[in-house]
Amino acid sequence: MRIGAYGEVMMRLTPPEYRTLEQTHSLRMDFTGTGVNLLGNLAHFGLETKMLTQVPDNRLGDTAKANLQTYGIQTTFVGKRHNHIGSYFAEVGYGARPTYVTYQNRHNSSFGVSGPETYEIDTYLAQIDLVHICGISLSLTEATWQTALAVAKAAKQQEVEVCFDFNFRPSLNDAKNRAMLKARYETILPYCDIVFGSTRDLAELLDYRKAFSGETDEQLIQSFMKEYHIKWFCGTKRLAVADQQFISGRIITQEGTYETKAQLLQVLDRIGAGDAYAAGILYGYSNDWSIKKSADFAITNAVLAHTMLGDVCLTTIEQVEQVMQAPGTDLIR
Amino acid sequence: MRIGAYGEVMMRLTPPEYRTLEQTHSLRMDFTGTGVNLLGNLAHFGLETKMLTQVPDNRLGDTAKANLQTYGIQTTFVGKRHNHIGSYFAEVGYGARPTYVTYQNRHNSSFGVSGPETYEIDTYLAQIDLVHICGISLSLTEATWQTALAVAKAAKQQEVEVCFDFNFRPSLNDAKNRAMLKARYETILPYCDIVFGSTRDLAELLDYRKAFSGETDEQLIQSFMKEYHIKWFCGTKRLAVADQQFISGRIITQEGTYETKAQLLQVLDRIGAGDAYAAGILYGYSNDWSIKKSADFAITNAVLAHTMLGDVCLTTIEQVEQVMQAPGTDLIR
Amino acid sequence: MRIGAYGEVMMRLTPPEYRTLEQTHSLRMDFTGTGVNLLGNLAHFGLETKMLTQVPDNRLGDTAKANLQTYGIQTTFVGKRHNHIGSYFAEVGYGARPTYVTYQNRHNSSFGVSGPETYEIDTYLAQIDLVHICGISLSLTEATWQTALAVAKAAKQQEVEVCFDFNFRPSLNDAKNRAMLKARYETILPYCDIVFGSTRDLAELLDYRKAFSGETDEQLIQSFMKEYHIKWFCGTKRLAVADQQFISGRIITQEGTYETKAQLLQVLDRIGAGDAYAAGILYGYSNDWSIKKSADFAITNAVLAHTMLGDVCLTTIEQVEQVMQAPGTDLIR
Amino acid sequence: MRIGAYGEVMMRLTPPEYRTLEQTHSLRMDFTGTGVNLLGNLAHFGLETKMLTQVPDNRLGDTAKANLQTYGIQTTFVGKRHNHIGSYFAEVGYGARPTYVTYQNRHNSSFGVSGPETYEIDTYLAQIDLVHICGISLSLTEATWQTALAVAKAAKQQEVEVCFDFNFRPSLNDAKNRAMLKARYETILPYCDIVFGSTRDLAELLDYRKAFSGETDEQLIQSFMKEYHIKWFCGTKRLAVADQQFISGRIITQEGTYETKAQLLQVLDRIGAGDAYAAGILYGYSNDWSIKKSADFAITNAVLAHTMLGDVCLTTIEQVEQVMQAPGTDLIR
Amino acid sequence: MRIGAYGEVMMRLTPPEYRTLEQTHSLRMDFTGTGVNLLGNLAHFGLETKMLTQVPDNRLGDTAKANLQTYGIQTTFVGKRHNHIGSYFAEVGYGARPTYVTYQNRHNSSFGVSGPETYEIDTYLAQIDLVHICGISLSLTEATWQTALAVAKAAKQQEVEVCFDFNFRPSLNDAKNRAMLKARYETILPYCDIVFGSTRDLAELLDYRKAFSGETDEQLIQSFMKEYHIKWFCGTKRLAVADQQFISGRIITQEGTYETKAQLLQVLDRIGAGDAYAAGILYGYSNDWSIKKSADFAITNAVLAHTMLGDVCLTTIEQVEQVMQAPGTDLIR
Amino acid sequence: MRIGAYGEVMMRLTPPEYRTLEQTHSLRMDFTGTGVNLLGNLAHFGLETKMLTQVPDNRLGDTAKANLQTYGIQTTFVGKRHNHIGSYFAEVGYGARPTYVTYQNRHNSSFGVSGPETYEIDTYLAQIDLVHICGISLSLTEATWQTALAVAKAAKQQEVEVCFDFNFRPSLNDAKNRAMLKARYETILPYCDIVFGSTRDLAELLDYRKAFSGETDEQLIQSFMKEYHIKWFCGTKRLAVADQQFISGRIITQEGTYETKAQLLQVLDRIGAGDAYAAGILYGYSNDWSIKKSADFAITNAVLAHTMLGDVCLTTIEQVEQVMQAPGTDLIR
Repeated sequence: MRIGAYGEVMMRLTPPEYRTLEQTHSLRMDFTGTGVNLLGNLAHFGLETKMLTQVPDNRLGDTAKANLQTYGIQTTFVGKRHNHIGSYFAEVGYGARPTYVTYQNRHNSSFGVSGPETYEIDTYLAQIDLVHICGISLSLTEATWQTALAVAKAAKQQEVEVCFDFNFRPSLNDAKNRAMLKARYETILPYCDIVFGSTRDLAELLDYRKAFSGETDEQLIQSFMKEYHIKWFCGTKRLAVADQQFISGRIITQEGTYETKAQLLQVLDRIGAGDAYAAGILYGYSNDWSIKKSADFAITNAVLAHTMLGDVCLTTIEQVEQVMQAPGTDLIR
Repeated sequence: MRIGAYGEVMMRLTPPEYRTLEQTHSLRMDFTGTGVNLLGNLAHFGLETKMLTQVPDNRLGDTAKANLQTYGIQTTFVGKRHNHIGSYFAEVGYGARPTYVTYQNRHNSSFGVSGPETYEIDTYLAQIDLVHICGISLSLTEATWQTALAVAKAAKQQEVEVCFDFNFRPSLNDAKNRAMLKARYETILPYCDIVFGSTRDLAELLDYRKAFSGETDEQLIQSFMKEYHIKWFCGTKRLAVADQQFISGRIITQEGTYETKAQLLQVLDRIGAGDAYAAGILYGYSNDWSIKKSADFAITNAVLAHTMLGDVCLTTIEQVEQVMQAPGTDLIR
Repeated sequence: MRIGAYGEVMMRLTPPEYRTLEQTHSLRMDFTGTGVNLLGNLAHFGLETKMLTQVPDNRLGDTAKANLQTYGIQTTFVGKRHNHIGSYFAEVGYGARPTYVTYQNRHNSSFGVSGPETYEIDTYLAQIDLVHICGISLSLTEATWQTALAVAKAAKQQEVEVCFDFNFRPSLNDAKNRAMLKARYETILPYCDIVFGSTRDLAELLDYRKAFSGETDEQLIQSFMKEYHIKWFCGTKRLAVADQQFISGRIITQEGTYETKAQLLQVLDRIGAGDAYAAGILYGYSNDWSIKKSADFAITNAVLAHTMLGDVCLTTIEQVEQVMQAPGTDLIR
Repeated sequence: MRIGAYGEVMMRLTPPEYRTLEQTHSLRMDFTGTGVNLLGNLAHFGLETKMLTQVPDNRLGDTAKANLQTYGIQTTFVGKRHNHIGSYFAEVGYGARPTYVTYQNRHNSSFGVSGPETYEIDTYLAQIDLVHICGISLSLTEATWQTALAVAKAAKQQEVEVCFDFNFRPSLNDAKNRAMLKARYETILPYCDIVFGSTRDLAELLDYRKAFSGETDEQLIQSFMKEYHIKWFCGTKRLAVADQQFISGRIITQEGTYETKAQLLQVLDRIGAGDAYAAGILYGYSNDWSIKKSADFAITNAVLAHTMLGDVCLTTIEQVEQVMQAPGTDLIR
Repeated sequence: MRIGAYGEVMMRLTPPEYRTLEQTHSLRMDFTGTGVNLLGNLAHFGLETKMLTQVPDNRLGDTAKANLQTYGIQTTFVGKRHNHIGSYFAEVGYGARPTYVTYQNRHNSSFGVSGPETYEIDTYLAQIDLVHICGISLSLTEATWQTALAVAKAAKQQEVEVCFDFNFRPSLNDAKNRAMLKARYETILPYCDIVFGSTRDLAELLDYRKAFSGETDEQLIQSFMKEYHIKWFCGTKRLAVADQQFISGRIITQEGTYETKAQLLQVLDRIGAGDAYAAGILYGYSNDWSIKKSADFAITNAVLAHTMLGDVCLTTIEQVEQVMQAPGTDLIR
Repeated sequence: MRIGAYGEVMMRLTPPEYRTLEQTHSLRMDFTGTGVNLLGNLAHFGLETKMLTQVPDNRLGDTAKANLQTYGIQTTFVGKRHNHIGSYFAEVGYGARPTYVTYQNRHNSSFGVSGPETYEIDTYLAQIDLVHICGISLSLTEATWQTALAVAKAAKQQEVEVCFDFNFRPSLNDAKNRAMLKARYETILPYCDIVFGSTRDLAELLDYRKAFSGETDEQLIQSFMKEYHIKWFCGTKRLAVADQQFISGRIITQEGTYETKAQLLQVLDRIGAGDAYAAGILYGYSNDWSIKKSADFAITNAVLAHTMLGDVCLTTIEQVEQVMQAPGTDLIR
């Protein structure tokens, strides 16, 4: 299966050694974004991947493309326009000190200002079998919303499957018109096959109000899946027990549900782990694995993503399987 | 409240990545010291802070001043004399391996050789409301002892409050005449309002012998506080349970005592955490907070100090409060 | 003399060791800008300096302020608003390969969107004797133009001297309405005392057309100075002879002209050298030095600026004078 | 034109800051080789490029591929076999101190042990228009010699042009049977269209003995070109004048010769500059440029290659043309 | 006691900060190997140590020797021949992600191709009291096997004690003729006094089949020790309890057995810890310590080795004893 | 010939990339000193070298010894006492900007406070053939003066040759009693065989007043050599011509004089070049080379020393001879 993604490429700038920005003059530069993270990991799993996005038409755009290629992502459909790339600074936390992310201007980025007319959507879709769309495009700008919708619609028409990630962050969208956002999500969902999300997304954003209806979590999701003809509804759950953190993964189909065991997390870099879970799921899906096999693989991949610096999880199939088969091994030679 | 500190500025040199000195040619250079650590943190809390000290009249002095300014400390009263700065090398430990600190010649430093006549003490005190004095000045050299005393006396006269930190390390003072040191502490204490110390300091250095009198810890401290008219007596306690380390903080007034819950420590850099506790306490004191509110804030700040590289804790009010309100959060964006 | 500057604080990101962005994941972060460069150098010359600007109300703003303080610049009037800071990436050249500068979105920065109502201009001016305004503020946004004008006007009223730097870059302003820009320059110039510029600025931007009038360079400048009652008109000239680069400096008053000898350049970092020249000139001006003494000092400072990494020239008076008195010395101990 | 190359991928390990291996624990890792250098540069010129080689079937092979992709080289035909990659250590010189290159075992590398049967040569050639072969493959191992020959023969058959680089280093081949090597060169040359070499190669290796025949340099080359039906014969010449180094380039066709002006070199990293010249020539050739235009472009590119760290010259068309049009510019913004 | 070791010097290349090879261009270079690790640690314990090995006759050999000298190992018997050194790349793991070691060509190294005739074995042995031989030499090449045997035989003759480490890794030796390897081990064992190994080595390699004979672990070892007249048989055991790792050490003599308490491990760098255990044992042995004192010292040293980056444990006697006497201390000043 | 040196080991701390101390938190740590530089280089030339000095009895002393061993210097006579090591900070200059050296407290160092009774001088001298003494020991402290004299006297008695380096820096000794220093030099010179110095040393320090006597430079030196029975009097001369720097070397014997051609300098790191010249001279002397051969070798070595970072020149015989035979070569592979 050949996988594509429409989404933003961002520059991540990280001080070394758990330092804060004030403590250093040295930053690590990486290029990330939900689509990048996902495709980079899938390329390491051996799949052909292709990004659909816009980067600046300057040295930063050149550098962004070179970085995507390192991950193994094909950049034929990475356009170059304007001169700004969204960025964020990650001050990596330790123990009680949380990781602080500071975003810089994303609305005016080359990606943010580019509408559907700037992409060759049909040609692009003809070269892939499944396209991933991140919900952030729905709230970023009018142009990205229009593009996301155009990609989803064209995909439906060309029989390319659509994977959609809610990625709804109430904190980022406070100022937004929640009603407008709800409408946008409702508009795009009919074109989607696989969805990453949580009951909170359904309850808070789409107004599937569990509290009133007395439905269970799963009933709530089932009604959502039926309404939109969703094949797989996937997500993760984090829990903390006695100063330790755990994560579990779940896939729901209209036929049933599978939830993995909770896995202990040891966290080197928290960011991008959700995308590693998604990569694992899509790898299973593209191989027609069972939901059990897919979720077990994906959650192990997510656990590993927490142990790698940077957003993009660079695990290979062999590495994930090695950890699944012999957890606790600490040296391989 | 405007806060000052009389104390030494030292150069700290640290190998990267938990390496030992033999394993590296690369060192991180920072400028620290009890007063620097305290004022740097308080400046990040939004207070106006001013250091009273001497640094070398050469490139190292220039660099020391530039570093103090980065922390937000005002350097108008940082004099430049002679040509030596005290330094220490910190080989940061890991797990069972302790952090090793190696001191280099502090007695001959610009600070160590400068007596009260080299400072404009009165002008300085006129610009602050509280001055911090570290007990190390009492044992370092005759010149620093005379200066510490002069600062304390003049503060009393100008109605500037005095905060004194025992900072008595038996190991460093073995060779010293313990009797002389006792006399010096007894001479300066009448001028002090807030004191950081422990019952060990009172028992071992000042000869408040608990063992013989049958007094409780707290009674011991109360007699000390009454003798010297101390307002707040503050300190921290460390304990280890099953390979985990905890810390709690305590403030005692003549009216009562408050001790915080023990907090789990995850240690990235051990040095300077006591000064972060002191910074938290002084922030509470300067805002007329209750001892409960002050100690809870201070102990959270001390926990965070263990998670930051370097002696100087650079937390802001927002960061400390965020951790108090939502402990366990590991990502903020 | 206490010196101020109204101008932008930018983040500069530089790959190490002459590398290009594609070749590295490591960037050096510095905070710069014409005003920062100028005041940072003047602070190292011993003058009291104060910046008037806006930085983001987030971790980047905190870091920007800490960096200004390191240089010795006072930040009481550095406001915190919005969440974006202008940035640029400098790929440092070598030999035939030029340094490439890539700018990122400056119009939407905290500085770019802040108009005069966001500053306490009068209070600020009351604490300084001379204020520097950079011509870039005239073309950046409407808000920065209005602020620059308000600062210049209020300065006139409060008898604070105004130093203005044309900083007119035809390449950046091609798309701009040149007529509008001319009008803005003509509006602010009556409030200015010292001006940094070139005959090209007068000829191309202000339409003092030398070609038609047959005037000499100096006559052209004299008519400009008379029209606007300028005290000092200052600039530098670069020339290349046989693969070597030279620089000379000039100051023109209504009484006469002084031009320094051409100095050989050895270039480690090209950016910011013009600001170092300006710093030297303002130091001479503030000490009532002759134009000869001022220009000789300033051009030496500019030569040194080419030998230091980063925009901000951190020379001291002693260093500049040492090079003037004993050029060619390569080791001082 | 789509360009391919059959050649070795090597790991280059370089101490930082002109240090020697003894002085450092830190090395920069890059992946290089004549083919990599050439294709990486051509990819930056906008051409589609594809490498034919073998890398180890382990983490080093993964890393080598990721690095090739960063340069924009397609890696579909980069096989993974065995477990060894050739490497070299470059201690970068300064002034009178030359750069020292220390090679590590190349004969047993994945590339060195792989013969023609391990490659899909026909499929590969079907996707390119010109293939580059480096003379080192003729002397490295029997397997690489056989592969080079097979590629050249098949190319001829499939009407893919062949570019051959003598790359004959007498010092490396002393122990070799010079006669055997001569025979190999004579066997492959009939399949070649463009050749990079020098009269020394023709005289010393192929026994075109200028000294005895009294022929001029150019006559010597013309007889060679006629014998093998070579279209373009290309090379560079270095000369030193008064402590300065210069380089010029030359292209000879059967119709005529063009030699560029000598260009001053300022050398940051000497290695790979010849490959940058070749990249420039092939870019001109693929665009049907005149030999004058091609050589002028190529020699400027070679000059720039000396100013970039690493073997792979990452210049773009815009950068080369900018330097050709405005040499001496030292800052572009 | 003066200690020697015959063994390979390898170059270890490690990405910084837990990064993978793909994520970095920066590697840390160290020189390691069982003999190096052992002697380096023993030199830090104050013993005179001398390595018997061959390194390349080039810059890598120079660098290897310089690194051995840093550890305090004497290099008079480190020969320089050929031009290849074995190397390995260590991608350091974190949490669930294991450390990956990738070996590069060891068989063709200067060490691998050098037989007994290239060493002055007798002169060497005359300067030491005990020589360490690593089992890897038995399987690496015919030349190293012959040398190991020659060293062991000559040692017996010169009354130099022999310490032998099985270091048998089934995974590395799958393809090997197991029978041949068994014969080699059986040939060398009669010359050995101290042996590091496990029951697995005896059972799997030497065919002491516990399963069939019903013998206990210890009986199995005792029969082995009797057969070969071994004085001390030493090893470590790792166990995992609830996500925590522990290690214990054991020494068996023909008179009895001592096994230490299990110690909690906190792992910064896993590699080389076994050699640190061996160093501790040999230090005890050379001082005629009891097996209890030796094993307790050695296991503490092994625990510390896990907390130091790099293969070579650089602990001093004082550091080990400090941890034994006051475990849990986290700051020493 | 086995060479020794009595002298100070210092810690050198250097900011990276030509930065100033204010611009960085990162320092490079090296261990240097005239004796260290000399012996480190001679060890690389293949001679056996042994240092006589004292370092601190703490982690810094351990690290200093490890660094000396890396250079190949034997450390059996490096004692460990007290707890302070002299240090200096080198801000490396560029172009017109000189290198600034800032010294930290040398008088109180372990070396500075150690007198002759703390060394085993006779045992030490029994193991070497020539000992180097640096004039700085004569002015540093009374203890180092007494030790230098004791070493020189004992050397004479044991027929170990003495090489003495004036190393008289008027700037460092202004405050000193010049008369006392003169007396000390006159006391030690009768024990010396080889002397490094200049006519300035003889004229200014020893009062051989050329100006009054009308003697030529060489006559002046000859009278000095006769008075003290000096075999070789050696030195270098620097000159600047049109922005370029040159160096030449000279050796004078009682039979004649040889002065090398002036060599162009390209300077990466200025410090330690004089010691590299001395190393070259002593290598020639120890091999009974002619003064021509010795000086030509030494001056080439000094030129190379300017191209290596750090005080200690790590050239080998092969490297120096390569540059002598083929100057201008810029790549060796």
